[in-house]
Amino acid sequence: MSSQRATAFVPGHVTALFSAHPDDDPAVAGSRGAGVTLTDGVAVRVLAVDAGETAAGDGGSATSGTEAATADADAGVTTIDGEPGSIGAVDDVLAELGVAADVAVETDLPIGAGFGVSGAAALGTALAANDAFGRGRSENELVRIAHAAEVGRGTGLGDVVAQARGGIPIRLEPGAPGVGELDGVPATARVEYVTFGELSTERVLGGDTATLSAAGEDALDRLRADPRLPTLMNAARTFACEADLLVPEVAEAIAAVEAAGGEAAMAMLGRTAFALDTGLSDAGYDPEVCRVDAAGARLVDD
Amino acid sequence: MSSQRATAFVPGHVTALFSAHPDDDPAVAGSRGAGVTLTDGVAVRVLAVDAGETAAGDGGSATSGTEAATADADAGVTTIDGEPGSIGAVDDVLAELGVAADVAVETDLPIGAGFGVSGAAALGTALAANDAFGRGRSENELVRIAHAAEVGRGTGLGDVVAQARGGIPIRLEPGAPGVGELDGVPATARVEYVTFGELSTERVLGGDTATLSAAGEDALDRLRADPRLPTLMNAARTFACEADLLVPEVAEAIAAVEAAGGEAAMAMLGRTAFALDTGLSDAGYDPEVCRVDAAGARLVDD
Repeated sequence: MSSQRATAFVPGHVTALFSAHPDDDPAVAGSRGAGVTLTDGVAVRVLAVDAGETAAGDGGSATSGTEAATADADAGVTTIDGEPGSIGAVDDVLAELGVAADVAVETDLPIGAGFGVSGAAALGTALAANDAFGRGRSENELVRIAHAAEVGRGTGLGDVVAQARGGIPIRLEPGAPGVGELDGVPATARVEYVTFGELSTERVLGGDTATLSAAGEDALDRLRADPRLPTLMNAARTFACEADLLVPEVAEAIAAVEAAGGEAAMAMLGRTAFALDTGLSDAGYDPEVCRVDAAGARLVDD
Repeated sequence: MSSQRATAFVPGHVTALFSAHPDDDPAVAGSRGAGVTLTDGVAVRVLAVDAGETAAGDGGSATSGTEAATADADAGVTTIDGEPGSIGAVDDVLAELGVAADVAVETDLPIGAGFGVSGAAALGTALAANDAFGRGRSENELVRIAHAAEVGRGTGLGDVVAQARGGIPIRLEPGAPGVGELDGVPATARVEYVTFGELSTERVLGGDTATLSAAGEDALDRLRADPRLPTLMNAARTFACEADLLVPEVAEAIAAVEAAGGEAAMAMLGRTAFALDTGLSDAGYDPEVCRVDAAGARLVDD
């Protein structure tokens, strides 16, 4: 087994509008829609379990990673911001690549709030584990593995392919590389966001998605006819209303941004409002600030 | 007409191996193969001709842009590193978008040396002109326009789609988005390069490409079976020999890098050697230094 380590960065992704397209084959399942990838994202460090130290222990913030690794050395340890944790899609990616590794997931993004953290963790694990263990998979293969793991766990449908691409992805056809099809809105922007709490992706995607998907298809048609940022934000607001997903705090924030002359929408699926430029600041909020991430998921130097 | 300006950055792209796939339809024509996109690239600034100043004049480095604009205000002026110049594919992109603009192309890359500068100029013009004039095209549409312009002018077959993607692109199927198909080698690296002069893309692509393309298909098969950087470099060296494209200065540099324990190959089509990490430095050359560009072509702030 290799003693190497590797680290990947995967941007956060806020979905602005979508339709759900389930399928028994997780590489075929996915979503149509559009969203924005963010320079705020997820760093994933992978280290072989027999390489003499844990990936988490090296970051200095994990206190129990080493003991846990000793207790169950074969399986490896996953930490999330230094705390032992578990992400199903990460486990599935490691199993698919046939490796046992310690995985340290570090993010400033709120979890369960519509930023695609689980998809980012899965994709970052795929990229970093492939590199650390010299698995020799191509980028499309790694995206496919992460997408299938995320869909299989029911934690997302379109984040992984969007996060792999970067920019402002339009998901023309659902599914992994070789099945799905992507385009993009050619734009860059400062992005602000505020989060009011979690929303269960599994519960929404596990329920009746017919109304939601009809609204998503309409919104996507509008965007494809005019692939510009203001149209994306406008279509996203209409979608959130028609899909009956808007929650009061987010609705209030969006209205406040609009009243201040800005553009905001809801991040699907989270109690999160995001805005272009200084939209939320102008409306009196104290938002997190980042930008559109041009690059998408990538290996980075340790 | 809009008074806005916009600027795009497009990475340089060294093709390591390729096969040529001409077609009467320039969106279908292209190449299979693989290469490396570089953080050294091309900045393209576009400004509407009636916006009161020239794009070139604003950079402070163009001395004759303003007079030329006055002489032929309708057509706009193109400058290359501050000097009035002409790039056929840039003209064709502007015509396809139906705009008249001043275009300032700035690059540290050598021109005609295998870095895809013409493709980068075309793609950067498409992105920046679409933004400056509010044309509302999607990213795929803009890549298609730039690819068709580049192919139509005979100055390249695969640079534009690779430069749009970033990273280390594998061109699985030739052609523009919606026709071609891409994958990538999941890796990052420091890249060094030295250039010994120009090589005519038009002359090579305009000649008999049967031997070249057979060698390119073999090399691509090897890379697809093991999509890793050392395999890419090895397949590229074999390709350059079998395709009979290797020139003496480049062959000497590649041999020197190999003798010093490094990995190098020839940039197609230019009298250029590129190496991973510190390969050329270790072999006693004084190379330019950059990295793999993760992001691909993108709009940037002016």
